[in-house]
Amino acid sequence: MQSCAKSWRVVISRSMNARVPYRNFSSKGDVFKKLQRLTADVSANVRCMGTSQVLWSRKIERILPRHDDFSERHIGPGDKEKREMLNTLGLESVAQLIENTVPPSIRLGRSLKMDDPVCENEILDSLQKIASRNKMWRSYIGMGYYNCFVPPVIQRNLLENSGWVTQYTPYQPEVSQGRLESLLNYQTMVCDITGMAVANASLLDEGTAAAEAMQLCNRQNKRRIFYIDPRCHPQTIAVVQTRANSIYLSVYPSKRLYLSVYPSVRLCLSICLSVFLSMSLSVLSVFVYVSVCLSVFVYVSLSVCLSVYVSLSLSHVSCYRDAAGKEVYRLALQTREQHIRRDKATSNICTAQALLANMAAMYALYQGPQGLRHIAERTHNATLILAEGLKRAGHKLQHENFFDTLKINCGVAGKDILEKAMQREINLRVYSDGLVRPVKMFKIKHRQCSFYVLFLKYIFFTSLHFYFKFTLGSCTMKLNSSSELMPITWREFANIHPFVPLDQAEGYQQLFRQLERDLCEITGYDKISFQPNSGAQGEYAGLAAIKAYLNSKGESHRTVDKHKANLAAIMITYPSTNGVFEENVSEVCELIHQNGGQVYLDGANMNAQVGLCRPGDYGSDVSHLNLHKTFCIPHGGGGPGMGPIGVKQHLAPFLPSHPVVNMQSSNAGSSLGTISAAPWGSSAILPISWAYIKMMGSKGLVHATEVAILNANYMAKRLENHYKILFRGSKGFIAHEFILDVRPFKKSANIEAVDVAKRLQDYGFHAPTMSWPVPGTLMIEPTESEDKSELDRFCDSLLAIRQEIADIEEGRMDSRVNPLKMAPHSLACITSTTWDRPYSREYAAFPMPFVRPETKFWPTISRIDDIYGDQHLVCTCPPMDVYESPYEERASS
Amino acid sequence: MQSCAKSWRVVISRSMNARVPYRNFSSKGDVFKKLQRLTADVSANVRCMGTSQVLWSRKIERILPRHDDFSERHIGPGDKEKREMLNTLGLESVAQLIENTVPPSIRLGRSLKMDDPVCENEILDSLQKIASRNKMWRSYIGMGYYNCFVPPVIQRNLLENSGWVTQYTPYQPEVSQGRLESLLNYQTMVCDITGMAVANASLLDEGTAAAEAMQLCNRQNKRRIFYIDPRCHPQTIAVVQTRANSIYLSVYPSKRLYLSVYPSVRLCLSICLSVFLSMSLSVLSVFVYVSVCLSVFVYVSLSVCLSVYVSLSLSHVSCYRDAAGKEVYRLALQTREQHIRRDKATSNICTAQALLANMAAMYALYQGPQGLRHIAERTHNATLILAEGLKRAGHKLQHENFFDTLKINCGVAGKDILEKAMQREINLRVYSDGLVRPVKMFKIKHRQCSFYVLFLKYIFFTSLHFYFKFTLGSCTMKLNSSSELMPITWREFANIHPFVPLDQAEGYQQLFRQLERDLCEITGYDKISFQPNSGAQGEYAGLAAIKAYLNSKGESHRTVDKHKANLAAIMITYPSTNGVFEENVSEVCELIHQNGGQVYLDGANMNAQVGLCRPGDYGSDVSHLNLHKTFCIPHGGGGPGMGPIGVKQHLAPFLPSHPVVNMQSSNAGSSLGTISAAPWGSSAILPISWAYIKMMGSKGLVHATEVAILNANYMAKRLENHYKILFRGSKGFIAHEFILDVRPFKKSANIEAVDVAKRLQDYGFHAPTMSWPVPGTLMIEPTESEDKSELDRFCDSLLAIRQEIADIEEGRMDSRVNPLKMAPHSLACITSTTWDRPYSREYAAFPMPFVRPETKFWPTISRIDDIYGDQHLVCTCPPMDVYESPYEERASS
Repeated sequence: MQSCAKSWRVVISRSMNARVPYRNFSSKGDVFKKLQRLTADVSANVRCMGTSQVLWSRKIERILPRHDDFSERHIGPGDKEKREMLNTLGLESVAQLIENTVPPSIRLGRSLKMDDPVCENEILDSLQKIASRNKMWRSYIGMGYYNCFVPPVIQRNLLENSGWVTQYTPYQPEVSQGRLESLLNYQTMVCDITGMAVANASLLDEGTAAAEAMQLCNRQNKRRIFYIDPRCHPQTIAVVQTRANSIYLSVYPSKRLYLSVYPSVRLCLSICLSVFLSMSLSVLSVFVYVSVCLSVFVYVSLSVCLSVYVSLSLSHVSCYRDAAGKEVYRLALQTREQHIRRDKATSNICTAQALLANMAAMYALYQGPQGLRHIAERTHNATLILAEGLKRAGHKLQHENFFDTLKINCGVAGKDILEKAMQREINLRVYSDGLVRPVKMFKIKHRQCSFYVLFLKYIFFTSLHFYFKFTLGSCTMKLNSSSELMPITWREFANIHPFVPLDQAEGYQQLFRQLERDLCEITGYDKISFQPNSGAQGEYAGLAAIKAYLNSKGESHRTVDKHKANLAAIMITYPSTNGVFEENVSEVCELIHQNGGQVYLDGANMNAQVGLCRPGDYGSDVSHLNLHKTFCIPHGGGGPGMGPIGVKQHLAPFLPSHPVVNMQSSNAGSSLGTISAAPWGSSAILPISWAYIKMMGSKGLVHATEVAILNANYMAKRLENHYKILFRGSKGFIAHEFILDVRPFKKSANIEAVDVAKRLQDYGFHAPTMSWPVPGTLMIEPTESEDKSELDRFCDSLLAIRQEIADIEEGRMDSRVNPLKMAPHSLACITSTTWDRPYSREYAAFPMPFVRPETKFWPTISRIDDIYGDQHLVCTCPPMDVYESPYEERASS
Repeated sequence: MQSCAKSWRVVISRSMNARVPYRNFSSKGDVFKKLQRLTADVSANVRCMGTSQVLWSRKIERILPRHDDFSERHIGPGDKEKREMLNTLGLESVAQLIENTVPPSIRLGRSLKMDDPVCENEILDSLQKIASRNKMWRSYIGMGYYNCFVPPVIQRNLLENSGWVTQYTPYQPEVSQGRLESLLNYQTMVCDITGMAVANASLLDEGTAAAEAMQLCNRQNKRRIFYIDPRCHPQTIAVVQTRANSIYLSVYPSKRLYLSVYPSVRLCLSICLSVFLSMSLSVLSVFVYVSVCLSVFVYVSLSVCLSVYVSLSLSHVSCYRDAAGKEVYRLALQTREQHIRRDKATSNICTAQALLANMAAMYALYQGPQGLRHIAERTHNATLILAEGLKRAGHKLQHENFFDTLKINCGVAGKDILEKAMQREINLRVYSDGLVRPVKMFKIKHRQCSFYVLFLKYIFFTSLHFYFKFTLGSCTMKLNSSSELMPITWREFANIHPFVPLDQAEGYQQLFRQLERDLCEITGYDKISFQPNSGAQGEYAGLAAIKAYLNSKGESHRTVDKHKANLAAIMITYPSTNGVFEENVSEVCELIHQNGGQVYLDGANMNAQVGLCRPGDYGSDVSHLNLHKTFCIPHGGGGPGMGPIGVKQHLAPFLPSHPVVNMQSSNAGSSLGTISAAPWGSSAILPISWAYIKMMGSKGLVHATEVAILNANYMAKRLENHYKILFRGSKGFIAHEFILDVRPFKKSANIEAVDVAKRLQDYGFHAPTMSWPVPGTLMIEPTESEDKSELDRFCDSLLAIRQEIADIEEGRMDSRVNPLKMAPHSLACITSTTWDRPYSREYAAFPMPFVRPETKFWPTISRIDDIYGDQHLVCTCPPMDVYESPYEERASS
């Protein structure tokens, strides 16, 4: 009966809720015949099921196939829609499209070797098994990572709310005011707590923030020596050191530099770290975000170089005005970043820790300034008590002054204590001479901060409803399914300190191994490093690996990307940002190799390649993978993201290492150094990509790529008679994205890309990427997740806009006051009594039948005056009178 | 060192994130003095901490008090606001207000005896400890409860989304179209699957649905005998039997009645149960919802009595038209239910299983009709295989035909099999002669269903954004905090079959015990039954308990509420629905008792009493408690809810029992019978009330009551010079709610309550309860959770509306076309080119400064034509041409 119970379990658990393709059961007789065959096996198996359970399960799969529909849910168009799109393209099949698009010479020519896909209803159980291998010890390791309380109201309404999680970088401020306001709150909070004049809206982690700060100083004063306090966290020093190497700076340890600034900043840091940082850490324990200003002034000196932030070009929110004169918010200097002098940018603006910064800002509002001080003081006082108790128990503290951490000199008893801690499942930080890092105690400086007033304002006015959702962007905005996102808040993933002994993180290690194996199979590389936590970080890591490799071969003179003798590497985006699979990519790679160089292939466009061709096959040595694009990690409104790199075997010894955690796989001797503060980057979000790959399986992944290409070609086809499509492959097809040339309309109708982008908001669409890679154009990347009706609505909108442009060209509409120049049209504008436009309210706000009052997403403000804002940067919240309660005028009437 | 590690843990875990009231640390020296005293203890304790950890923790609490702020977060007004409100009322203190409001004779006069409040950051850990005592066995018990897959997209975006969860019954259709549309989908789905002509939008569970069906038949044909198939679930039979007793019907078992209708209905039921019901069950495993139509025709016959549903008066969505002629949705016959002939209603419309019905409707859209059939067929085929395997293994099946469940005759091997199942942590249903209940197998009838077309529509158009949130209602709409709501989806609560052996549900039992103890302390009763799962159900249970008690005393002649000899009971709402604490409630109770009757005190207004007075003290014998009102369970848009009853000791033996689960506490012999299908009702939502009570603690609970009364009195004060306030206590104060008399405006300005209610939507407020308890008036219950600014905005709006009425009264505004009669103003209306009203668009849509375009909640439709809809009931989705894709006209242009 044992086997019976087991088989029962298998049958039932497999059968519930999996969809049966009815076509497999053409007649009842057929089923019964199959049943007879199967039950013959059953009787043979039923008494010895233990060993053949898998076989049995497989047999059931064959006769009662699961209808694994996740890829169908993930991929927008169904069979009918795909046929219609192929008809439009004049093609017979998707295969024919791919033949005409991806050069046969680089085609993979076989299926990806992946595990069988896991059903959506089973994926979380599978992942739970992995998660359960992570051990939930209490960690008092510190070092920048603390487990704290995330108020459920923030977890549920922000971290688990797609309106915040899935958003792209808020390039279109008219539909992102809520998020921008929250980021400005974050900046204001950081400035208030630190007393600094400027803060930006987060960097990647503490280590990279310190490195950015060093580069900022270097850009400001051009000096070549940088001192660092050896008491900084080892991973911070390692990241700074690695970065310094790559820009030929010298870093020296110095305690003296710090003594003057350490106290006040340390306190701020402590409060900030233990409250704000930790808050997010308890959810996503392997992230840290740090305000660059904190880091700047901690790691450099008190010389505030305000003018420098302009060239820093990391995401930064400022106040602007809209066309109606209203105070509004926008990413600062965005035009400069994206359109003007973009070659000066040191980093991609996209990925920071925007989601966590927003959580921190909301947490601050939740606690209020009083609450934050209470927490800090109680933490400190509790530490005082602990210290006193320890002293009286005969232990020796290393320092008299501390904030929330004690370094205890245990002498010979150390080993005993550690053993007891382990028995109690407690992690401590171990020095060779005792326990836990030292910090100082400082007086708390009280100041009346504007943050407090801001808080009061928020008590009355904050409404999450104000924060918007919006559909269809660019930069690979594919579906982020709830089943992929749910695990990131599981405690087994979220509450583990990144420096715990590896035997406590076996679940994570298993996840890394499985994901690495799958990503290697997808890319053709031999090894993956999960340390870089943004695409730009990945590029830097990949190039640093090449440099370390060349150095190891004694070819440190190779530093450029041309001239045979000094050739270090070439960086290729493939398919190109022009949206084309260039035919000769293999030859280019070969040429580079022949001349002693390495090939870095930008993985940003992997979404056009997965399952069709592999960079590792056609000649690339290293790529980064934007997991937050191709592999379904959402954008978070600007992070967190992950940019792991894949390399061929010869580069593997040079991958990132870590000064605290022995990563086993990496060779500390040859490693390029340390790229991020945590050994495996933002690993808490890796379950997202893992779940996506497992649920899609080999067929699903390649089909996603095919449909991404189909969708793009279908759109290009529908638009090509009305707009010029820049760049096509040799057979007239494009890859997964294409460039719409709107430059001619500047002359014919005084219409520019920005006017089209803003007008698209009126149609209910987020604007595609503007002015990249060709200034003055629009870049459209639909991805596989949008269904045909959405593509049609988007095309219909662009065609209608083309008609609006024609109206201007042909004199039927004014060239200054027209729906494009006046776009977007906010609700305030449409509902106003005053309406003196040469077009109707309906034409402005509901230009297509599918844009309806009850479902429309409204831009909350009119178009922003970019120039005014760029010239009047205000990086903290505006004065309080802006927020004055409008109803109080009437209160107590 | 052992004690050291422990104390460390205590210190750190207590200190993190708890707010320290800074006032307790008036000077640094003070802290150090306290520290010294404490550390003296420390040194005494530090070597033997094991036993005195609690003591140690208490000491730390004293010197470093936690700032337990949950009650501050739950209760809207802060100290400053409370003082302002008291000033407005001319009072010195909250205590003075309570003295003047609650009769001293019934005051509790002491604090509630509750555990110390648990901090918000610790509550989930505490609950997790309880949850972990529930054992997660696999249950194949069946009997109407099945564990199935809830797609994460539905869990996250519906069940965990406050926009769906916290909503009140959709009485105001203009702001509830999304939810109403979803409920109409549910009805359409049920009709499509069953082939029935009418379905409503859910009842409470299978047992009560069957009982309602019986009553429906009885109302239709007036016959007194009801046959029931003995193969129905025992809990269903028990609920029907109990209900029949109370209306003096006779119930007889009959198999024959069923044979004609069983097959087709059973199939529908099977599909429906295993797909729809189960879907919700895996989340909230102790609920069942069943369409009344299913039950009607299952339990009665095929005689469809369409006209009967009118008197059924349970929530039911129908199509209506709005003022603009658009097809819209509304609760059917709502006017009739709420305003006209409401005495004919057999049940309160509020609580059904709306949230779960919405989940089921979304699940159906998610799977599509093909998917549902696939699941049903695969389930059935898998059962066929299992059956064949079991037969070949030598077991005997009780029935040749089945759908998804097998009854196996194990003979003497039964005990052995059960033991092995237990070893594998599997629950089976045990008969005295074998395993698991029998069902029949039937052919599947294929039909082209309109549901399919509906599904297609949804694939393209469904957008959750369409579903609205709205603030401030009535009927005790207090804050539902995320920390209270999170546990309901924990697997340890959600995935347990309600009939598992009690030793697998020890966590639940502990939760019940703790909650019962607290509720007894709050109410003054001796015993609680958690079986009733709505307020109305609770009332019925309470009255049935009284009846059983009287019968047991040989006083079955007591059946009415007047005349001494036959007096059974009186039902009192206290404080009354007029919003007043009547002074003589004790005397009334005494009078009833003296004349041999019992007192049923309606618990609907417990929110005005918690911590101030207790029904059990001033003379009541039994009350129900609306946990979904007073104790923070959200309304779910109309359920699930919980209506447990509290009783004095003499009624305890008569509380509900259960035919399947031995509830220990109840006495099966004397019990009133069975009220709901599950022994402890909708127990999966009880953690909400548990967490609320634990976090509030004694002080928090009483303060919530005080502020509920303060808020109501403040509003009444602000409004009293402009509106007549009906009913006040002897000292001029009201309880926690009050009645605004708008009847005079009918004559003076042709304005009725409904006009004020609809106009309030334009101001951004959900209308308060209309026409209850006094026809033509508005009942306002602000609760403690609204802060003063929200109350002020609401009062300001009512004052502005009063001014609008005055404008009509004084001839400045037309009496037919004015902002009140035309309210609410939808976006379509405001943005239209056509505007011929005698007031401006801004006046219509933004009547107050705090109603702003970027944050306003818009009614999606104009006012509904109630009469047209009531006369043209359409209870499934309208014909498909209504849904025709508007953009397809333009597609492929």
